[in-house]
Amino acid sequence: MNNLRIPPGIRVFNSIKDFRQWRRQILLDRQTLGYVPTMGALHRGHLALVSEAKKACDHVALTIFVNPAQFAPNEDLGTYPRTLQADLDALAQHFDRATVLVPQVAEMYPSGIEPDVTKQVGPFVEVKGFSHQLEGTTRPHFFRGVATVVSKFLNIVEPEQVYFGQKDVQQCVVIQRMIRDMHFNVHMNICPTVRESDGLAMSSRNTYLTPIQRKYALVLYNALKLMQEMYENTTKHAPTLVAAATELVNKTQQEAQAECEIKLDYISIASPSTLNEVTDDIKDGCIMSGAVYVGKTRLIDNLMLDVKL
Amino acid sequence: MNNLRIPPGIRVFNSIKDFRQWRRQILLDRQTLGYVPTMGALHRGHLALVSEAKKACDHVALTIFVNPAQFAPNEDLGTYPRTLQADLDALAQHFDRATVLVPQVAEMYPSGIEPDVTKQVGPFVEVKGFSHQLEGTTRPHFFRGVATVVSKFLNIVEPEQVYFGQKDVQQCVVIQRMIRDMHFNVHMNICPTVRESDGLAMSSRNTYLTPIQRKYALVLYNALKLMQEMYENTTKHAPTLVAAATELVNKTQQEAQAECEIKLDYISIASPSTLNEVTDDIKDGCIMSGAVYVGKTRLIDNLMLDVKL
Repeated sequence: MNNLRIPPGIRVFNSIKDFRQWRRQILLDRQTLGYVPTMGALHRGHLALVSEAKKACDHVALTIFVNPAQFAPNEDLGTYPRTLQADLDALAQHFDRATVLVPQVAEMYPSGIEPDVTKQVGPFVEVKGFSHQLEGTTRPHFFRGVATVVSKFLNIVEPEQVYFGQKDVQQCVVIQRMIRDMHFNVHMNICPTVRESDGLAMSSRNTYLTPIQRKYALVLYNALKLMQEMYENTTKHAPTLVAAATELVNKTQQEAQAECEIKLDYISIASPSTLNEVTDDIKDGCIMSGAVYVGKTRLIDNLMLDVKL
Repeated sequence: MNNLRIPPGIRVFNSIKDFRQWRRQILLDRQTLGYVPTMGALHRGHLALVSEAKKACDHVALTIFVNPAQFAPNEDLGTYPRTLQADLDALAQHFDRATVLVPQVAEMYPSGIEPDVTKQVGPFVEVKGFSHQLEGTTRPHFFRGVATVVSKFLNIVEPEQVYFGQKDVQQCVVIQRMIRDMHFNVHMNICPTVRESDGLAMSSRNTYLTPIQRKYALVLYNALKLMQEMYENTTKHAPTLVAAATELVNKTQQEAQAECEIKLDYISIASPSTLNEVTDDIKDGCIMSGAVYVGKTRLIDNLMLDVKL
């Protein structure tokens, strides 16, 4: 942190107390604050959220915080890309002003944060009914970590508007439910997934991919598009669509075998209101989503059909 | 609600949205709001909290809400005293002004609230490490319900100051930890337990007691005072103190047998920082607490020795 060059127009806070003073003045000036929570390694997806916030609000704040509570002990907390200087430079390049809070783990989790969930102490937020399926099958404590840290940040930032990307669609459903039911005084905005020119969903984890893996990384989006195409032209029977998408991933897996390991985690067609799997014809729109390992990198993507969150 | 007489000086909101408008004006006027969460059935303990809030803040709000999430299916949710008219009259009698939010269960829990915890849907807050012992032994989901509803109300009321009674000492520890770790932007005040002239701690549940039960209800306070007296004069060895207190309750139980059933739930001497039982000499102060059934009424009480929360 000491060698950080703060580019012009960018304000960086490391202390929650200092950030709050800045925020309070905005309130007393009767101006509004838009908020974009991030784990850093900013890409065009994040910048699109900041752009949206800029349009609607007088001020925009980001948080950059790699949240330990949402990583399982076997996951990539240690290697998750931390690129603070590049993040600040990217913000300065695209925006005239932005405020960034970069808090320490010890300030965010005053009771500490053990990697082992059973040893954790302190308050945690769980969104029951929406956290155990889909991503939650492979990552059972992920949304607990997300809901907890987003709650903390909403209490700290107290924004009028908050921005999330549709790329993490289950996160959107979980946080939307949490904001509504916990009565957070904030309006939630869900912005479209930003994609590379070939269609790959932007993700900080894309930087893990080797050139060959990058080529095959499109397999999940192709599978989702196949389901969409069939849904629009052939059949609305969810299990048939999932089977076709699974077959496409399996075929790609076999083709790639020599140069790149591909492993399907799940393909799902779920109800947007319950996140339960659609087991028959899709009636009131759906969330098509999936997760695939390309090499050791776990990629997720989704399409929402005939429905808005 | 329709036949409610709103006494002079008392403002009652039933809708969260309307309450928020009132609250926002206070903020824009740069005035402060003190908040007293209650389940109604107001007694002098609650009124003392309101008094404290009045001293420190420009405005005072109470919530009156019997929170289903903190009652187990076998507990007294259905019979818990609901005395809204008397509550408003008491406020008007003691204070020139007060604002009361009386929300509906459906607005507080938009996803509904099932009595069976395993069927519950939506966000819940759990304060790990401080919720399973003492009261949590008999009431394993109690503090989850309390932490959840207090979080909701802090988000709705957004007070500068919030007031709790020391009578519910574990609740104070749980909420204090939650406010700190979740970064709620509020200062927590813990006020002394208010007692009847004979020493019985004020409680809305005291109204359950028959005259004979009322006579024996003092057994817990007597046990706590015995421990305090021994701590100050004889020994600081926690298990010895707990044994003496337990013996006193058992003796009273035998005396009462013919006219009143008394059952000890627990007597505890715990560390204020961890709520773990002290198993040797008390060193840095302690929380002496306990729960006793008098008839079917469960009473709790506590004394804090050489320590402040």
